[in-house]
Amino acid sequence: MKRTAIGFLGCGNIGCGVYRLLETHGETMAQNEGVAFDIRRILVRSPGKKRSWDIPAHLLTDRAEDVLDDPQIEIVMEFMGGEEPAASYMIEALRRGKTVVTANKMALAAHWEEIVRAAREHGAGLYYEASVCGAIPIIRALNESLQANRITSMMGIINGTTNYILTRMREEGAAYSDVLADAQRLGLAEPDPTADVEGYDAAYKLSILATLAFHRHVPVESVYREGITKITPQDVQYGREFGLTLKLLAVAREVDGRVEARVHPAFVPDSHPLAGVGGAFNAVYLNGHACGEMMFYGRGAGDMPTASALVSDMIKAAKAKRHMLPAVGDARCEMAEDWACVHFVRMQAKDEPGVLAQVAGLFARHGVSIASVAQKAGGDRPGAVQMIFLTHGGSEQAVRRALCELNHDIASVCSMIRVEGV
Amino acid sequence: MKRTAIGFLGCGNIGCGVYRLLETHGETMAQNEGVAFDIRRILVRSPGKKRSWDIPAHLLTDRAEDVLDDPQIEIVMEFMGGEEPAASYMIEALRRGKTVVTANKMALAAHWEEIVRAAREHGAGLYYEASVCGAIPIIRALNESLQANRITSMMGIINGTTNYILTRMREEGAAYSDVLADAQRLGLAEPDPTADVEGYDAAYKLSILATLAFHRHVPVESVYREGITKITPQDVQYGREFGLTLKLLAVAREVDGRVEARVHPAFVPDSHPLAGVGGAFNAVYLNGHACGEMMFYGRGAGDMPTASALVSDMIKAAKAKRHMLPAVGDARCEMAEDWACVHFVRMQAKDEPGVLAQVAGLFARHGVSIASVAQKAGGDRPGAVQMIFLTHGGSEQAVRRALCELNHDIASVCSMIRVEGV
Repeated sequence: MKRTAIGFLGCGNIGCGVYRLLETHGETMAQNEGVAFDIRRILVRSPGKKRSWDIPAHLLTDRAEDVLDDPQIEIVMEFMGGEEPAASYMIEALRRGKTVVTANKMALAAHWEEIVRAAREHGAGLYYEASVCGAIPIIRALNESLQANRITSMMGIINGTTNYILTRMREEGAAYSDVLADAQRLGLAEPDPTADVEGYDAAYKLSILATLAFHRHVPVESVYREGITKITPQDVQYGREFGLTLKLLAVAREVDGRVEARVHPAFVPDSHPLAGVGGAFNAVYLNGHACGEMMFYGRGAGDMPTASALVSDMIKAAKAKRHMLPAVGDARCEMAEDWACVHFVRMQAKDEPGVLAQVAGLFARHGVSIASVAQKAGGDRPGAVQMIFLTHGGSEQAVRRALCELNHDIASVCSMIRVEGV
Repeated sequence: MKRTAIGFLGCGNIGCGVYRLLETHGETMAQNEGVAFDIRRILVRSPGKKRSWDIPAHLLTDRAEDVLDDPQIEIVMEFMGGEEPAASYMIEALRRGKTVVTANKMALAAHWEEIVRAAREHGAGLYYEASVCGAIPIIRALNESLQANRITSMMGIINGTTNYILTRMREEGAAYSDVLADAQRLGLAEPDPTADVEGYDAAYKLSILATLAFHRHVPVESVYREGITKITPQDVQYGREFGLTLKLLAVAREVDGRVEARVHPAFVPDSHPLAGVGGAFNAVYLNGHACGEMMFYGRGAGDMPTASALVSDMIKAAKAKRHMLPAVGDARCEMAEDWACVHFVRMQAKDEPGVLAQVAGLFARHGVSIASVAQKAGGDRPGAVQMIFLTHGGSEQAVRRALCELNHDIASVCSMIRVEGV
């Protein structure tokens, strides 16, 4: 049986998960798959630290060269996290012809072109299933199952922390800050939650997914991004009354040769397959011109789900006679500057005759077509009401222009949330 | 660019879908994937017949040898359907070292061992993503994404026709036979619907899925099978009142080294991801010891979704330096003769004091633990009521033994339906 020598870069919870999976399930995998692995060195910051799985001390090192310079190591597993030095180490490994298997969406998305070039130039393998949506095989699906499709759109719940927060806000009517604090206590949100709640984590992942789906590099800086920190229980509740569920969505679409890629809160109809994706689960829903609608659902994070994807990549790499690289051309992607969707707009307005007519007139002048309006008691100020508009699908720029011209003496915008999947 | 010569066995709607996909999207695929295809011959029964896509007449032949004996043809695409001659043709092609790509679950499941052996002995490729769940990449997921997992259970809605029927029965309270007749009119059910409604189609697919999940051959004859023809609107409705949705489920589980594989109507809780899978959609929900819960959802049939999977296999085969065969050992699978689940039992009973006590006593004597009982007016006979029992999870054989001993003077069983995913 073929034995493959591997090295780890990093050994936190995910690294320990991989080690544990190889130790407890390696024999069965060897039987089934005909490949076996020898872990030669593990780069860690503090070799003396207590870890979640017992790792023999002689494997640990704090010198990256011990992994990168070892000519016997064929596969380098990277789960250090963070942009640097992870990206440089990966490029270094690829330049030496080693296969890289990574869970690091940030380093990969931020250095996509350099990393892919290094792999291509040195005939080295690059595997990154674990970098997006944990155990869900969405990378494999895009690269090896949907090649016959023109992917027209993709919508994903690709950040578990924000989905957990929004699910609880919906179920309990709770405020964002309360649920966040609770999630932090439970270890479901980081002490500094910015990367998750502001959509950075989802933007990195979407950059990778959209690049694969549209076969052109969609840089992370081109991804429009808006977080969930301003979401109020009212928005969640009013959406509910319209039969809508609020999610942090990652949306990518190709329209007339231009790509839109955006991460922001969005409502989906309660009947949409994504609406039922609760708690810390992830899901990617997509449309291909041949396959039609499709959804992948599962655990997008956690040590063992991520280890499942990493070890699957390891097995695939060890069995490969030739490594497949992403089918992405060199052309930069032309990004859309506007996109069409339904908009949910909540305003606080003066409770006076003529106000609705004025606001409706403003929308009309900007070509924004209104599908429904609801008026609710209970503005924050005396004499104020809440007005909720649902537009027909149309230009987002038009909605923004209209809202910019709103006369603040009569109404002010509380929130503008896109509605997808209608 | 590498060009690969292919031959078709069959050219109905699916074959025409593949032809169409290659003709309309082939150039883009060649750009992205670096492979191109030449269709050399197409075996059909009646070369003169009108088809759903315009196929040049010179490609058509009614002699199988024109495809099987052509030394230039590297990949044989099989979508004739039916067990024979499809299985013999596939084996013939594999013996000549040709790669076979098939959508034919029946031929593949019924001749699994011979077909896999022929591929192995002749170093030929065997690809069958399209044979289960159309466009959904469940075969790829089991073989190439979940290798690091011990799959503990799998539940699938893997027949679109029955899911369409059950969805409409639920939504409209309609009777089975009415919805079936409608589905037949709409072309969603065959004139002879037996293969779908009696669960044969799902059993073939489950045999393939369970074989891959458990790495031992699960022959189709070992799959327990029960169809949906006896399902009544009452069952659907009563289930609804308990918060349950009725589906034709394909269930496979490994418990203590034994495999259970069964296709039958089953309730799932309304909150379960499978409950929302409506209409003709398919979904496979599974549990792996590392990846946790996962679900794949999409179009399980139709010419273009099936063509999407077939062409994806074609591309994969054309790019492969070495073909991967299913990681299945030679050992026959030990099948479970009993399994544990929650049971929904509906009875028609005499409306007399003591009847409930007698039935409850009978269950107790057989070790069946009752979770809840509901009594409903409206038996078919005067003086009769409906009694609905939900058991705790437990032995199915115990429930059957209890029901066998039921005194028909006091009660008779209308239906016994398993409840999964609780």
